[in-house]
Amino acid sequence: MKLKKLRDKMINNSIDFYIVPTFDPHGSEYIPENYKEREFITDFSGSAGVAIISLSEAYLWTDGRYFIQAEEQIKNTGFTLMKMGFSGVPSYTEWIGNTVEKNQTIGLDLECFPQESYEKLKSSLRFKNINIKNINLIKEIWEDRPLPPKGKVYIYEDKYAGKTSKEKLLEVRREMKNMKSEITIISSLEDIAWLFNIRGSDIKYTPLVMSYAIIEEDRALLFVDLEKISNDVKNYLESFCELYNYSDIFNYVEKYENTSIYVDKNKLNNKLFNCIDKSNEIISGNNLTEKLKSIKNSTELANIEKAYIKDGVALTKFIFWIKRTIKNKGITEYEAELKLREFRKLSKDYIYDSFDTISAYEKNAAMMHYHASEENSSTVKNSGFLLVDSGAQYLEGTTDITRTISMGNLSSEEIRDFTYVLKSHLMLATCVFLKGTTGKALDSIARYNVWKNRTDYKSGTGHGIGCFLSVHEAPPSISPRALESPMEVGMIVSNEPGIYREGKYGIRTENILKVVYDEKVDDDIFYKFNTISFAPIDIDAIDVNLLEDYEINALNSYHREVYNKISDYLTDEERKWLFEVTKNISK
Amino acid sequence: MKLKKLRDKMINNSIDFYIVPTFDPHGSEYIPENYKEREFITDFSGSAGVAIISLSEAYLWTDGRYFIQAEEQIKNTGFTLMKMGFSGVPSYTEWIGNTVEKNQTIGLDLECFPQESYEKLKSSLRFKNINIKNINLIKEIWEDRPLPPKGKVYIYEDKYAGKTSKEKLLEVRREMKNMKSEITIISSLEDIAWLFNIRGSDIKYTPLVMSYAIIEEDRALLFVDLEKISNDVKNYLESFCELYNYSDIFNYVEKYENTSIYVDKNKLNNKLFNCIDKSNEIISGNNLTEKLKSIKNSTELANIEKAYIKDGVALTKFIFWIKRTIKNKGITEYEAELKLREFRKLSKDYIYDSFDTISAYEKNAAMMHYHASEENSSTVKNSGFLLVDSGAQYLEGTTDITRTISMGNLSSEEIRDFTYVLKSHLMLATCVFLKGTTGKALDSIARYNVWKNRTDYKSGTGHGIGCFLSVHEAPPSISPRALESPMEVGMIVSNEPGIYREGKYGIRTENILKVVYDEKVDDDIFYKFNTISFAPIDIDAIDVNLLEDYEINALNSYHREVYNKISDYLTDEERKWLFEVTKNISK
Repeated sequence: MKLKKLRDKMINNSIDFYIVPTFDPHGSEYIPENYKEREFITDFSGSAGVAIISLSEAYLWTDGRYFIQAEEQIKNTGFTLMKMGFSGVPSYTEWIGNTVEKNQTIGLDLECFPQESYEKLKSSLRFKNINIKNINLIKEIWEDRPLPPKGKVYIYEDKYAGKTSKEKLLEVRREMKNMKSEITIISSLEDIAWLFNIRGSDIKYTPLVMSYAIIEEDRALLFVDLEKISNDVKNYLESFCELYNYSDIFNYVEKYENTSIYVDKNKLNNKLFNCIDKSNEIISGNNLTEKLKSIKNSTELANIEKAYIKDGVALTKFIFWIKRTIKNKGITEYEAELKLREFRKLSKDYIYDSFDTISAYEKNAAMMHYHASEENSSTVKNSGFLLVDSGAQYLEGTTDITRTISMGNLSSEEIRDFTYVLKSHLMLATCVFLKGTTGKALDSIARYNVWKNRTDYKSGTGHGIGCFLSVHEAPPSISPRALESPMEVGMIVSNEPGIYREGKYGIRTENILKVVYDEKVDDDIFYKFNTISFAPIDIDAIDVNLLEDYEINALNSYHREVYNKISDYLTDEERKWLFEVTKNISK
Repeated sequence: MKLKKLRDKMINNSIDFYIVPTFDPHGSEYIPENYKEREFITDFSGSAGVAIISLSEAYLWTDGRYFIQAEEQIKNTGFTLMKMGFSGVPSYTEWIGNTVEKNQTIGLDLECFPQESYEKLKSSLRFKNINIKNINLIKEIWEDRPLPPKGKVYIYEDKYAGKTSKEKLLEVRREMKNMKSEITIISSLEDIAWLFNIRGSDIKYTPLVMSYAIIEEDRALLFVDLEKISNDVKNYLESFCELYNYSDIFNYVEKYENTSIYVDKNKLNNKLFNCIDKSNEIISGNNLTEKLKSIKNSTELANIEKAYIKDGVALTKFIFWIKRTIKNKGITEYEAELKLREFRKLSKDYIYDSFDTISAYEKNAAMMHYHASEENSSTVKNSGFLLVDSGAQYLEGTTDITRTISMGNLSSEEIRDFTYVLKSHLMLATCVFLKGTTGKALDSIARYNVWKNRTDYKSGTGHGIGCFLSVHEAPPSISPRALESPMEVGMIVSNEPGIYREGKYGIRTENILKVVYDEKVDDDIFYKFNTISFAPIDIDAIDVNLLEDYEINALNSYHREVYNKISDYLTDEERKWLFEVTKNISK
């Protein structure tokens, strides 16, 4: 039906292929409602994917986190799933490169397409005479499309940010000098929020402001819907930068000539990139703010650690509650999610969740990013696993944590898998590594144990996390697909190996790691991780005989810490229970 | 003195910088004596390094394996060492890129410089008007330069090669088709020897023939010094290829026009590359033979495993001999090397060593590639470690194995380090990994334990090995610097983590691994390693309390295999001893 309407528009506009990626103009991971065009056309609600529609075919590409969910959601839409990363499955650029014929036309909205993606698409089409037409056809058929967000901008105070915007601008300008660039255009919303110490509410789960910025050697320019700015915020911002309206960016960028301009082609959209005059020299790479932002300062680190205590208290209370309640009555996944949120709301400075809670019982948890709704939610009973992956935005920081909770009567396969996930988790958590080691290298250390178990997980092992920003923040990444970027002291990264058995269950144990300095021996500098998230790991689901001695010690010592950090904030009953479930295990 | 002579020649030829890399015309690792120009000018005898001489400065770049040795050898030559990989140390291309001034001239011999290196050098010089002059100045000052090698070519029989040259040509042509290339020029000597099933003796330690090859869709051309070819070999070769003289390659390549030509820029020298007419399309990548050659066929594998038994017998006899002899008298490192060779020579089909034996006592072993000579050799006494890294060429295959042998009275630091090297070794040897996993990913699994010990080794963990070819064979490589090339079933790779304490001792435990199929679970295919080299690992040097249970089991089960495979070939006395030193250890 929707596909039919779209194809009619394609015919009217002489478009042979129409591409619907998952982007806003800023290359954001989570995008404002009005930009969710791929979800509109495919019904697939995951955070990543690309749809391509021809007059006869319609495909959706998404990654391993979403295979099961996507299959489900696109069932009656006319789309076929392309499983990214599977051998023999072409990438969407390969597919279109091989499929498109001479003189055909590809349509897509180039304001919502990063320059890097555009260049990749272009190069997959080499040797052929193909038109890429800047057009938005979804707009024309999406009748109840939401309005653009209008959230107010507020100041992220120095007591949280730890560094003033002026100090951060100095650091960025130092990087600009290193890169021999005179100006940098920033379009990534996280980077702008971090740099200007502002937050907003234009995007669900993340306190971001739709905006662009330009940093020159002695000026800072912020492009934002001025209606979102109160007088106080205006006064704050104008003390170090100039304010322009959001859509002025295009005309403004056109004015630069003979300038060396630093841009992040993964974030800058093609339409804006095309506004840059040819007389300029373009220097491209990851946003200069990206690495600066990922290395948390001491104020941020102290606050983030506070946020994780609050978060651990809520999750611990929740685990106690559900383990007790489930003995007498079933609870839906959705009710469990609500209850967990209730516990989080007890904390001062809880703002909202940092992503869709995954409260997934038994086979639902095999879908890595499953989300129960009020209408569609399984009932948790007193057997099997409930996987709960959740997080929140506190003023002090952004959290993310997963526990897989035994509801009772586990099979030996479930216990074995849970134990191997724990082995993988502990191996990464306790590893020591040479300065310069990349997240890519650490990924195989994490996978070593699940591989021993002849299992693998189709997601990365860990991702960076913002400070009251995005729950997924580059560059930290522990993944076989990560860039060659070394882990640095002060970075925050998740540790979330898992095992997913389609149709049966899913297991994930996730804590958050802080990279710390360990020791210098001769010329070698070593780093290690400190785990900064705290909640009991379910000892009911562990086969201690599968653990090596060092793993038992590591788990016991983590559980000591959980008790010490969390118990003060619990009721007597909860505390007594926590004492029991964090006691030493042994062979 | 030599540097003075070279600088005089530089002045006469208006050369500001002269580069002496370590290459022959074929990008070989080990090079014929007459091409050892870098060794001639720097006195550094290691297998890798680049020298750059300006009128006022002289530097030698080499990698971590050679830092200590190079420091020693260049002491009085006027060269300064540049430690590659150290932070703050520029690469030689970075250094020259930053140092050279407008209109200056760089001289080097472009017949001994791969195209890839040339392009890197060129690009490091961008924005500057620099001449690169094709000139060989070393030739002019090297008075007793050896003559080019004249070794006879012989046929590597099918019972060893496992596949005829005709079959291999079919496979190469299939790859050529995949790469849409009409011809491929091969200049790598290992690849030519493998493809044509010939061997020779032009290069020390490796049975190679100085040669070039061109494969067309229906012709195979071999360029080789025809004086090296007997009538029998001529008849064999002419049954499927055409023979040309070695130096005819340059004129021959010039003739191609409007052809798509596949080349390996890492191997093809710049002089030959420049012979390719501009009308041709150049497709570049690793030699198409490289991966085919690295995946050993079943005949090769069976033979290689036989060679490793022979080799293990020799090494086991040697360890018995030295442990017994050392009780009564000192032995020099050099004598130990000779004795080991004596044991190897007992095997039929032993040809010669596959590289310079490293027989290194105590602090000498901290130099990763130390080589004792008759004149300069420490005396091994009854304390500390003797590290012996050696290998041989048998008709059945090429071997490489290292043991670090306790001579008695080890310190607790030595025992701890030996045990951590063993932990690293066992972790890699017993790991299971997903199909598609790269050697780069496996490297950090191997390093996990030495990092726990706050140590690191500045070499890779493992390298591929040829079948009666080079002891280092790409693409298999377990290293943080490895390319993104997955491990495949049938590949052979070494497992040689180590700990090197400058001025004190060096420890390395090296076995050879064969990649084998493990299991398919759902959509995931798993591989693992089988260790195919056998000799006791010194249990006198192990602190069993530092081992996890799985490590104890892995070591005991390896030692069972050592006894079963080796004991039949020993004297009664040796066998009794082997039984003792391979018995189960426990906590």
